[in-house]
Amino acid sequence: MTVTIKELAQLCNVSEGTVDRALNDRKGISPKTKKRILKAAQELNYLPNHLARGLAKGQSFTLGVVLFDVTNPYLAQLMTAMEIKARELGYVVFPIFTHNRPENEQIAFQHFQTRRVDGIILFSVQKGEAFEQQLKEMNIPIVTIGNRISPSFPYVGINERESMRDAVQYVVDKGYEQIVYVCPPLAHRGKVNLYTLEERLAGCREVLAERALPEPIVITDRNYLLALQDMDWSSSVRHAVVCPADYYALEVLSFFKKQKIRVPEQVGIMGFDDIDMLKHINPKLCTVKYPAKEIAVTAINYLIDQINENERKHLSAMLLQHQVVEGESL
Amino acid sequence: MTVTIKELAQLCNVSEGTVDRALNDRKGISPKTKKRILKAAQELNYLPNHLARGLAKGQSFTLGVVLFDVTNPYLAQLMTAMEIKARELGYVVFPIFTHNRPENEQIAFQHFQTRRVDGIILFSVQKGEAFEQQLKEMNIPIVTIGNRISPSFPYVGINERESMRDAVQYVVDKGYEQIVYVCPPLAHRGKVNLYTLEERLAGCREVLAERALPEPIVITDRNYLLALQDMDWSSSVRHAVVCPADYYALEVLSFFKKQKIRVPEQVGIMGFDDIDMLKHINPKLCTVKYPAKEIAVTAINYLIDQINENERKHLSAMLLQHQVVEGESL
Repeated sequence: MTVTIKELAQLCNVSEGTVDRALNDRKGISPKTKKRILKAAQELNYLPNHLARGLAKGQSFTLGVVLFDVTNPYLAQLMTAMEIKARELGYVVFPIFTHNRPENEQIAFQHFQTRRVDGIILFSVQKGEAFEQQLKEMNIPIVTIGNRISPSFPYVGINERESMRDAVQYVVDKGYEQIVYVCPPLAHRGKVNLYTLEERLAGCREVLAERALPEPIVITDRNYLLALQDMDWSSSVRHAVVCPADYYALEVLSFFKKQKIRVPEQVGIMGFDDIDMLKHINPKLCTVKYPAKEIAVTAINYLIDQINENERKHLSAMLLQHQVVEGESL
Repeated sequence: MTVTIKELAQLCNVSEGTVDRALNDRKGISPKTKKRILKAAQELNYLPNHLARGLAKGQSFTLGVVLFDVTNPYLAQLMTAMEIKARELGYVVFPIFTHNRPENEQIAFQHFQTRRVDGIILFSVQKGEAFEQQLKEMNIPIVTIGNRISPSFPYVGINERESMRDAVQYVVDKGYEQIVYVCPPLAHRGKVNLYTLEERLAGCREVLAERALPEPIVITDRNYLLALQDMDWSSSVRHAVVCPADYYALEVLSFFKKQKIRVPEQVGIMGFDDIDMLKHINPKLCTVKYPAKEIAVTAINYLIDQINENERKHLSAMLLQHQVVEGESL
């Protein structure tokens, strides 16, 4: 039903190299010849070599991706970087969004099994023994990002606790005494896997304890702006709001602007993620930067290595560097 | 290999209604029973009824989605709304990103055919007779969004020309005399389907001609900020930069801030899309709003109607309403 690159070359009366140039959009071929070859390839249902080979071996050249969603710009960046890298290596990604609901994660696994994806990038919603058992029984290579499950599943990310430690140390060094920690997803503690967010909060608590400062006021309310509204921002104790996502930090910043509470004079703000959009925001938000693109690329590379059973030490975690980004909000 | 809901009920010694409650996360069931049923369902490889039925009929309950990418927040919003609606109706979406390259669109179609998607939401890169022929030969229901191909393919969107007419009329009514129109993708004119962007530019030209104002200065340079740098913003002729995407308008706004060129006193800015992020930006950007979520939902509903061959007039276009959003940038 499909033709090989050799047959395609014969039929078009050109060399295999020329066919390759046409198919891979490389230089050194006239537009006319290229058009002729592409037309023939399409008519004859040509499949690129690696795909044909993979199909013969039972590979689908599809990678399942389990992600929360893409409305958070950080996740959109991560998604895009993974997709580009996978495409470069001949794989298509099949993202399924969980919106942080375990049942959606289960549906994703069902689809990935039915569609026989070769590997899975997993930003997990669930955790625990039964879940790990299920993952192992699927018998599909898995690389986790965003949320760790356990050392049995390779993880690509940053040192979450350290990153928030550094952020809070920076805040405290600026003279802020009371941290208000805004993190609505923590309301789901116990129900979903919140490894990353729990590690970050632990990092915050550690630093405050070490510095003999009061415990953070932790807001996990969905309507966190309402909670902020009830607080006394004219107190002589210097307050800073720390958010483990720029997404929330920007909402807090806009809220303070609207309330005519001056940032950073009356209250400081610390974000996390260093999303692209920050370049358009005044005052410039202090945040924590980490290489989202490199996380994506490392995860895809490692997953494909596992699929191809390349010789490689079985890694438990690949942690990349983070960095506090100075701004005008502290 | 799979069990029915009836068998599952018998095996667990509960009613079918109870199984349904457990599987669909509904109330009226004890946590213990729910856990027991879910465990059994998982062990026995239970497939929800509609999926089993669909599989018997040859349906995959998968919708292919062809989209540019998700780094533009407007596209992320659209993607999320489509995914949520499709999930609600029992379908999973399989998005493939083109980055506006015809070869990626072709790869998407290959995958959609191999994986037997039931329908396709298409933000098309290509157009023309051969392309239309190819789409018809795939014999898969298609609904187009973002870019029209031809009246043969149902389209969900807004009246693009009218929407930019309204935007430019608003700008001109504010006393601006010279429009600088920033739209880098137009550099690819002739190579890819730019229906939407061409219609918007046409709308801009129409209004300026009707008002006997000079032609717009159209910037299609990838480095459009460099092009803006070379212009004389101290001229006595009042200039406004019009962008058919907030994404560009925000870059332009930041550029003017950096250059200490006052907006709107020295130059006005008009965006398009009304992306969520605008709420955090000062001065508030003037833009054009349209119901992205409704477009997504309408497209998914119509596609699924076509898949199920519900009685329905074959529509060529479903156009939703747009609206100019006032701001402080004009």
